[in-house]
Amino acid sequence: MTSDPPTPDDAGRFAYDGLERVIHEKARLGILTSLVTHPGGLVFTDLKELVGLTDGNLNRHLVVLEEAGFVESQALKPSALKKRGRGKRPTQYRLTKLGRKRFLEYIGQLEQVVRDAGSVQASRDARAAGAST
Amino acid sequence: MTSDPPTPDDAGRFAYDGLERVIHEKARLGILTSLVTHPGGLVFTDLKELVGLTDGNLNRHLVVLEEAGFVESQALKPSALKKRGRGKRPTQYRLTKLGRKRFLEYIGQLEQVVRDAGSVQASRDARAAGAST
Repeated sequence: MTSDPPTPDDAGRFAYDGLERVIHEKARLGILTSLVTHPGGLVFTDLKELVGLTDGNLNRHLVVLEEAGFVESQALKPSALKKRGRGKRPTQYRLTKLGRKRFLEYIGQLEQVVRDAGSVQASRDARAAGAST
Repeated sequence: MTSDPPTPDDAGRFAYDGLERVIHEKARLGILTSLVTHPGGLVFTDLKELVGLTDGNLNRHLVVLEEAGFVESQALKPSALKKRGRGKRPTQYRLTKLGRKRFLEYIGQLEQVVRDAGSVQASRDARAAGAST
């Protein structure tokens, strides 16, 4: 690893334009990961438990995600309710097709960040291994 | 993959508390990745090229990172200047030991997010492979 000045090819190398702000916000990242791992959808209380947010904060972030078209909500079907043994009809949230697509694109960009930073770790490990021989 | 309600063990499963806000901000993530891959440090103009920010924005984010103790700056040494053939003394930025440690911890958390979301992709690939046989 060297610290040579960047070349013209490096312009914007670490700009990470694919890290969409709607998704990148930490709480929303948790909400979207919860939903992508539960393709059948999640009711508010279950989602709240997974992401560890207050009712108000979870609500606020869900509004942002619904307005972006990434998440949709609907009242739970009576058949599902019966199984859950509840009297009222809680709202269920799930990813839209667009939300799933954009989230997976975002994750691809995160993988790039991890690779960029990981190359440092690998290089350090290699130096450490070389020093110990 | 099922969409069963979360169990008590799942509480906070996707809270991602390790995603430190100072680091998670998209522009600062780019700055820190630039610096971690250039352990010898970067001068302002080179850093600016890598992250694709305006002078004002880059300055603003560097102040946040210096105040957090993650980045330090110093005037470039005359010997380095000579090599670069410049007349004035530009400021060089580099990660502090603390900044490096916290950044690598953050990257570890990003890897967790990618793994969490990646399990979905793997499961989908497995279903697609099963359907095609």
